[in-house]
Amino acid sequence: MRRYVAEVIGTFALVFAGTGAIVVNDLTQQSVTHVGIALTFGMIVMALIYAIGDVSGAHLNPAVTIGFWTARQFEGKEVVPYIIAQLVGAIAASTTLRVLFMEHATLGATLPAGSWWQSFVLEVILTFLLMFVILNVATGAKEKGIMAGAAIGATVGLEAMFAGPICGASMNPARSIAPALVSGRLEYLWIYIVATIAGAILAVFAYQFIQTETESDSNPESEHHAMEEVS
Amino acid sequence: MRRYVAEVIGTFALVFAGTGAIVVNDLTQQSVTHVGIALTFGMIVMALIYAIGDVSGAHLNPAVTIGFWTARQFEGKEVVPYIIAQLVGAIAASTTLRVLFMEHATLGATLPAGSWWQSFVLEVILTFLLMFVILNVATGAKEKGIMAGAAIGATVGLEAMFAGPICGASMNPARSIAPALVSGRLEYLWIYIVATIAGAILAVFAYQFIQTETESDSNPESEHHAMEEVS
Amino acid sequence: MRRYVAEVIGTFALVFAGTGAIVVNDLTQQSVTHVGIALTFGMIVMALIYAIGDVSGAHLNPAVTIGFWTARQFEGKEVVPYIIAQLVGAIAASTTLRVLFMEHATLGATLPAGSWWQSFVLEVILTFLLMFVILNVATGAKEKGIMAGAAIGATVGLEAMFAGPICGASMNPARSIAPALVSGRLEYLWIYIVATIAGAILAVFAYQFIQTETESDSNPESEHHAMEEVS
Amino acid sequence: MRRYVAEVIGTFALVFAGTGAIVVNDLTQQSVTHVGIALTFGMIVMALIYAIGDVSGAHLNPAVTIGFWTARQFEGKEVVPYIIAQLVGAIAASTTLRVLFMEHATLGATLPAGSWWQSFVLEVILTFLLMFVILNVATGAKEKGIMAGAAIGATVGLEAMFAGPICGASMNPARSIAPALVSGRLEYLWIYIVATIAGAILAVFAYQFIQTETESDSNPESEHHAMEEVS
Repeated sequence: MRRYVAEVIGTFALVFAGTGAIVVNDLTQQSVTHVGIALTFGMIVMALIYAIGDVSGAHLNPAVTIGFWTARQFEGKEVVPYIIAQLVGAIAASTTLRVLFMEHATLGATLPAGSWWQSFVLEVILTFLLMFVILNVATGAKEKGIMAGAAIGATVGLEAMFAGPICGASMNPARSIAPALVSGRLEYLWIYIVATIAGAILAVFAYQFIQTETESDSNPESEHHAMEEVS
Repeated sequence: MRRYVAEVIGTFALVFAGTGAIVVNDLTQQSVTHVGIALTFGMIVMALIYAIGDVSGAHLNPAVTIGFWTARQFEGKEVVPYIIAQLVGAIAASTTLRVLFMEHATLGATLPAGSWWQSFVLEVILTFLLMFVILNVATGAKEKGIMAGAAIGATVGLEAMFAGPICGASMNPARSIAPALVSGRLEYLWIYIVATIAGAILAVFAYQFIQTETESDSNPESEHHAMEEVS
Repeated sequence: MRRYVAEVIGTFALVFAGTGAIVVNDLTQQSVTHVGIALTFGMIVMALIYAIGDVSGAHLNPAVTIGFWTARQFEGKEVVPYIIAQLVGAIAASTTLRVLFMEHATLGATLPAGSWWQSFVLEVILTFLLMFVILNVATGAKEKGIMAGAAIGATVGLEAMFAGPICGASMNPARSIAPALVSGRLEYLWIYIVATIAGAILAVFAYQFIQTETESDSNPESEHHAMEEVS
Repeated sequence: MRRYVAEVIGTFALVFAGTGAIVVNDLTQQSVTHVGIALTFGMIVMALIYAIGDVSGAHLNPAVTIGFWTARQFEGKEVVPYIIAQLVGAIAASTTLRVLFMEHATLGATLPAGSWWQSFVLEVILTFLLMFVILNVATGAKEKGIMAGAAIGATVGLEAMFAGPICGASMNPARSIAPALVSGRLEYLWIYIVATIAGAILAVFAYQFIQTETESDSNPESEHHAMEEVS
């Protein structure tokens, strides 16, 4: 139970801070700036991994939960409860933003700036890279280790930085579903559900290839050492 | 005694740098920018936790001190001396800024951009998230551990980033009291005292729920491992 | 084989994110900003070192591979395969950006803003400093250690920040070759191949001088301790 | 000898990147921005501490060297050689910038934006806080420990961020002497020599008070634990 509560609070914090930055920026003459929005997304993810990584793994993202399950590092019976907890936290965040900022139309919903396929391809690649980093720095299904939070937070921050102006840089179905539902902007939501989950699953295959191939060309001792480093 | 001196110097540094960034930005055609102000707040908190975390715990914030006391991780007889030390440091910082920058009106006092209740709710949530992160990364009443300072500094930085343009993103009664007193802008000060302390206390309950619930659904060994990681 | 795949994915990620930031910035009215581009380059390097540093060493850069080989910390027979892997990843990234953003002319190719010799000298110094930091924080040919990724990522980020507007701050032949080939802007490419490799080799001599000189004036015990710290 | 070479290279890198950012910003329509300049100073200091902290201590700053000597953590006979090495590196950097950017007048020299006493007081406080952080995170005269570089780099970055527009945020005589000498702007140089050294010496007293007072009110065990953490 405590793991689900941790995911609810964590996903609330992620969506409240991240999409809150978009909303506040729109309402205060771009005072936050796009750079500030991207750094907000990256820093909240980093902080939450250190805060609750050892409680729930700090997935905060249904695509990440599905990715860990695909990699057989997370129990199947926990997938649905985790996703529900993430959606509850995200929707609570968007609802709170709706109450605080009645005058904002989209609440930070992700919408393609260009064609739908351009944003679709981008979201597949962005979520692939995020899940690839997560799997490589995580031990088991928990994103922890001394610098794991910094590496994952930096990945979210940089992807929001360079791709946000085109596709919104969601990488996370919960982060897209909540503002879309509460603001009623559902028309492109499918992109941010399908593409992110596809990207996360593709990352599992890449990860399994580079981590589990016959390791004859590599020093097993240094392998072991590296494992210690991030665990 | 040395712990109080550390809190005086630390809170001086926090308020001098953070509100100093606001003052300098106003006086130099927005050269620091809002992003620069938010990063200043985040980086000074991070640096101070590494510098004096093992001396005084680097609370630097009456709401944090009250939060630790509510969580029974800080002795009751130390609460008032800590808060006095924090106020002394903060007021010394605002007084120094007054002498250096006579032409600035508010010295970085926190004032709501919109309605008072909007800023009140925001400050409750911001301080809740800050105290939630602090409690989870801290061991006992001391904010330490290898990445604790980075996680807490990032939380302060990102909350200043996304919420600063609306409510000032105080999260800290001492940070709000000092410029309000020295500049005479006392009209909204109560928000930043009541809401921040309320947010910190709410975080204690959330923390206790996720950390102390019957841990039957969780591996006690991984629990123990995580504790080592941050201590 | 897995090491080469890791270098392909890593260099793809570096070039896709870094030059992608330049492309998106150009196409969205400078929304990413130069600061955002520089931070993107720094953060992707940091994240990749933590993700694949223990698999392939996360060179991601032919000049770095040649530097490690010059320092006798990397086998000669691996140099060409590594460089091929890096070029494959980089060209795949530029090709993907060409498909996604047909309307962009240069795809983030590095071009001197002033004279060719000014950019040549800058690239020598930039790559010298990058390789100097890498060699000092790395153990063997692998860029790892707890803070190695943060130090190297920060170096890439700050060099892109201050020198990018003049010379493009390549520091990496693969990062320059890929957009030049795909966009057909080959006229200044030689600078970014010759200068970066020259800078990396010069760094090896500086590193060997300060690390292997007779250590009679230094405490061998603290020496040993420092080695442990980064390994 | 290798320690002096490390200080020469380190101070060259600090002044080349930091004042180079100011020069490039002036010559490219503020493309680097003030935020970018401040982050450049912070990140280069962080990277250098991890790169050469175990060789020379990565002082890179005559005021820091004098501070460590005042605190009896650095041998008196090494003070003059260290300062000479720092000045050699800094002057080499400013000379290189002069050759690369003939059209720039001041080469990033520090000049007060307002009155001389305002900048003097600011530089005393800035260098006090920097040396206070350094002494508390350092073990002996070497700025190391896992997060020491991040804490010190953040302090330089945030102080450049908030105070740079008023006083230049030197905190370092070598960083001010080199561009002043090479560009001939010597009129305010004394401020940046006297105030920075005064601030560093004041920090030694504050540090000694909070670290060496009778530790009866503090748990000696947690004390010991904290020492391990940063060493």
